[in-house]
Amino acid sequence: MSLLDSVNSPGDIRGLSIKQLEKLCSEIRQYMIECCARNPGHLGASLGAVELAVALHYTYNTPVDKIVWDVGHQAYAHKIITGRREQFRTNRTYRGISGFPKMSESIYDTFGTGHSSTSVSAALGMAAAAGISGTDEKIVAVIGDGALTGGMAFEGLNNAGSMKTDILVILNDNHISIDEGMGALHNYLLKIATSETYNRIKNHVWDLIGSTRLRRSVQKFMFSTKMAVLRSGSLFESLGFRYFGAIDGNDIGQLTTTLTSLRNIKGPKLLHVITKKGKGYRPAEEDQTVWHAPGTFDPISGQRTVPAEDGIARYQDVFGETLLELARADSRIVAVTPAMASGCGMNIMMKEIPERTFDVGIAEQHAVTFSAGLAASGLLPFCNIYSSFMQRAYDSVIHDVALQKLKVILCLDRAGLVGEDGATHHGVFDMAAFRPVPNLLIASPLNELDLRNLMYTATLDECDAPIIIRYPRGKGEGVNWRSSAFSALPVGKGRLLHEGSGTALLSIGPIGNRAAEAVRMASERGKQVLHYDMIFLKPMDEDILRDVCSRTDRIITVEDASVIGGLHSAVCEYVSAHAPGHTVIGLGIPDRFVEQGSIKQLREECGISTADILEAIIQ
Amino acid sequence: MSLLDSVNSPGDIRGLSIKQLEKLCSEIRQYMIECCARNPGHLGASLGAVELAVALHYTYNTPVDKIVWDVGHQAYAHKIITGRREQFRTNRTYRGISGFPKMSESIYDTFGTGHSSTSVSAALGMAAAAGISGTDEKIVAVIGDGALTGGMAFEGLNNAGSMKTDILVILNDNHISIDEGMGALHNYLLKIATSETYNRIKNHVWDLIGSTRLRRSVQKFMFSTKMAVLRSGSLFESLGFRYFGAIDGNDIGQLTTTLTSLRNIKGPKLLHVITKKGKGYRPAEEDQTVWHAPGTFDPISGQRTVPAEDGIARYQDVFGETLLELARADSRIVAVTPAMASGCGMNIMMKEIPERTFDVGIAEQHAVTFSAGLAASGLLPFCNIYSSFMQRAYDSVIHDVALQKLKVILCLDRAGLVGEDGATHHGVFDMAAFRPVPNLLIASPLNELDLRNLMYTATLDECDAPIIIRYPRGKGEGVNWRSSAFSALPVGKGRLLHEGSGTALLSIGPIGNRAAEAVRMASERGKQVLHYDMIFLKPMDEDILRDVCSRTDRIITVEDASVIGGLHSAVCEYVSAHAPGHTVIGLGIPDRFVEQGSIKQLREECGISTADILEAIIQ
Repeated sequence: MSLLDSVNSPGDIRGLSIKQLEKLCSEIRQYMIECCARNPGHLGASLGAVELAVALHYTYNTPVDKIVWDVGHQAYAHKIITGRREQFRTNRTYRGISGFPKMSESIYDTFGTGHSSTSVSAALGMAAAAGISGTDEKIVAVIGDGALTGGMAFEGLNNAGSMKTDILVILNDNHISIDEGMGALHNYLLKIATSETYNRIKNHVWDLIGSTRLRRSVQKFMFSTKMAVLRSGSLFESLGFRYFGAIDGNDIGQLTTTLTSLRNIKGPKLLHVITKKGKGYRPAEEDQTVWHAPGTFDPISGQRTVPAEDGIARYQDVFGETLLELARADSRIVAVTPAMASGCGMNIMMKEIPERTFDVGIAEQHAVTFSAGLAASGLLPFCNIYSSFMQRAYDSVIHDVALQKLKVILCLDRAGLVGEDGATHHGVFDMAAFRPVPNLLIASPLNELDLRNLMYTATLDECDAPIIIRYPRGKGEGVNWRSSAFSALPVGKGRLLHEGSGTALLSIGPIGNRAAEAVRMASERGKQVLHYDMIFLKPMDEDILRDVCSRTDRIITVEDASVIGGLHSAVCEYVSAHAPGHTVIGLGIPDRFVEQGSIKQLREECGISTADILEAIIQ
Repeated sequence: MSLLDSVNSPGDIRGLSIKQLEKLCSEIRQYMIECCARNPGHLGASLGAVELAVALHYTYNTPVDKIVWDVGHQAYAHKIITGRREQFRTNRTYRGISGFPKMSESIYDTFGTGHSSTSVSAALGMAAAAGISGTDEKIVAVIGDGALTGGMAFEGLNNAGSMKTDILVILNDNHISIDEGMGALHNYLLKIATSETYNRIKNHVWDLIGSTRLRRSVQKFMFSTKMAVLRSGSLFESLGFRYFGAIDGNDIGQLTTTLTSLRNIKGPKLLHVITKKGKGYRPAEEDQTVWHAPGTFDPISGQRTVPAEDGIARYQDVFGETLLELARADSRIVAVTPAMASGCGMNIMMKEIPERTFDVGIAEQHAVTFSAGLAASGLLPFCNIYSSFMQRAYDSVIHDVALQKLKVILCLDRAGLVGEDGATHHGVFDMAAFRPVPNLLIASPLNELDLRNLMYTATLDECDAPIIIRYPRGKGEGVNWRSSAFSALPVGKGRLLHEGSGTALLSIGPIGNRAAEAVRMASERGKQVLHYDMIFLKPMDEDILRDVCSRTDRIITVEDASVIGGLHSAVCEYVSAHAPGHTVIGLGIPDRFVEQGSIKQLREECGISTADILEAIIQ
């Protein structure tokens, strides 16, 4: 019988020996690989953090003591040993467990995550609360080196470092976020982790620590004096933290020893641990970017499942290739991504024109305002940010881009429902949030060809304002887009997709294709629906609205975004002012957070599947 | 004739001697004090940065070289010497010049500001653009120690430190933002600025620099070797910057010498200058918080104008006193502000219950997620953030508060038009941005008493979700609020203000008082308008909407917020779904950025004055 089978809560591991913990880690790793081979997930980061999860639950009295995982896709081992071993097989599936820590899922998930760089702030809040309530629970935040570049993490560190509150921040440093790590901090961490001091500590001091007698004196030396190693962490010292490390975060013995010592040290502390992304699974260690989220694979051979070639491009391919094509022809074009170069397709341009492509690290606010600075100097930046991450840069878009009418082309990838990443990642608030912002144009393509042409249109002088182009994750509609010459789409103009009367359907974005299917099905039943693809949310095509109001009395709006504030609201506003009497039925994401699942399942749940649209038409 | 009279552009100062520059600084200071005595402004920070502005324009070839001022309320001297000496008399007034740098106002305003912590990102964009375009223009960002705590500044530094791009960041360190400086960074800067090294440099080396012969060798020593002083800046060194300083930022000689040397040093550099907020004007030096923005005053005596006592409290007083009263009675209540303790009134609680009041520095994202952490541990946080600054924490509210339904009471001060601070500071997007976010309650009080009771209501168990309470800057309506016992307002319920028929008026927030005036005036003309105060934007009181739709056919909505996405849209959505046929007229902030002016002027410009509302009723 395996050790893992007997672990139903962290209490079950606290009596184990180091040797047994090592065996447990190996079993967890094996189980994780087997599960993820069948049911895809964020394997790489979680493989690297197995020892960390085990050591934390072994050393700390969870759930009284609290662990906050930053981002959270490194927390699979944490989930597996906190009562969710079997449920882990449902990871990221519809009605299964979430791929991220989630408060409603387990008492051990002390704070939900998904977006990066929040853990220090949340943990500091808990630590301050413990101080006020007079409890002696310990609070630990685990943050990756990538997430540490997000400004919010710095805000948290800066605040924590000036409070006397007990808090342990573990810097889980694997030198990589999804793509290669970026920024000065990355260089700094690499330097201190590979410095002589580190190696000296690692090779000599820590080896000695195995002996209990020496351990005490070494610890005393380490923790009560300003030893040499502290110098390596001067960045964190400057911020008021005591710095410890760097130690090998894949060595369970070192980890438990160090954590036990740190548990009783007061004040803000930072422990720097070096882990290997993909640890223990050779294919994942060798190509860390691909194995960040590898899809399904054969666990023995490490052969990843190659999806059947259907010739259909992803929107990300279209973005990446079009960007390069435009940038080749126009030397003003530059490109900016906050750590999502391969995710959004910008790596294509980065390879050919690195001097005009900027990966600024996980730093959405900076990405937008840096782009505004580029635009202020006459360049033409494409700034690509996932829709839900753009929520981080809401003020930057308002204050630095729109207010100054600086022409930044803001490409919002992962707009709408994203599927298995769930509630934190659906990009459903963008249309509502940005519609009230003056000077902004907002558009969404119907398909790959439209994305290509919208990107082209955005570069033209007649498009004289900053523009948001939102489009979803994944495969397009399979239309032919590569071979066609660029063709400008008139700004603020939609297009007729189907003639009809009685009922009108207005859609925006690729969900318009599902709407078109429903319109075809209604047509087969003898009901002809007037269907327009708006293309632009702002400015809205009032010619279409006039036409629709004059020829129909019932309007259905369809959008892959919150039904509050976006297309639906815009149409209601028009109707209420100019054509009262028309009923407007809004199909979109309802007013609740939507969990994970396949796009198909989630569309059905939200009432925006083809069948739902058809039903709304027929009723 | 004064020197200042002859300065019409920076070119006019470049031939002056150091003695003349000193005289010019003194004249600028005098002029600034005289202007601000009559026409209120952000005097303190600008008094401290006179030498900095003069030295930068003296040393750098502006406008080819570019200066980006962070926040921008320290840039009055910059405005005065860049062709706006006379216009400065119109500072912050309607159709006058803006209190902040503004691209459309002057070629010397390279990037508009108002919110903090954006300068490094914008400047880095310009520097990267210069690199791509192959020009040799120099880019300088000037950022205060307060603004440096904003995470976005860190994102910018982290990115800049890993690029080879030439950029100079000047850290204008006056040890204070509006209130006393906060956070570990503040302590760190204080330490390095007052360290022996600094004093040694200041007292010995810099004195020697007056001699040209010595100057060269000292500079060579300083800039080409890793001298001792660099150690003091190890935080910035860790981020890839070369650190210089700290030097006296109110010494024009030191400044020009240092800047001249730095001008030709490649790569990312940080110059730490120490300035005194309020410099050169004794009252302002002595009470820096009060003189941050002192209102009008007698320039000779320094006597500030005491507004005639009318017994009317500001919403900020109501917030502050009510918070203390609630916190006294309920030990779960804690309070969080990002550096606006005196601005929002939280200083009242801070004085009496400091252990439950947290000023986290300029760090809106952290403030919200820190509050979420407090709430996750069972406390009841009031987190007070100005509405336009809350745009920074949009994702934190969605991802950390609403998604987890953590009960944080989010008080949005400065909601609606704010007056003289202008476009960057109007809090007009909050209702539209937050309405689509599930789990959130959104309310706005009609007056002081409602604010008090909404704050009380928010603490009750029947209010079981995070809640946004938005209210404006400044004086209330003069209603009696202090003496009354707390009274809960039913969640999601509005109230009838005036009976009528034919036309209905729905308002939210204190603008409802202007609407009520218009309704009274209409009543005097024989037209009885049905007027409801909604109080809650979310959930919306559908009983009211049903009543209104059944008894009237024309609905006017009035809100001190964008007419897109908030109350107006919500009513249009209801009508289009449930009662088609009603005309809805939306009065609110139109779809353009609104500049500075008095509230009265701006309301007239936006069409939400009492007269405008009356006109909408009568038409």
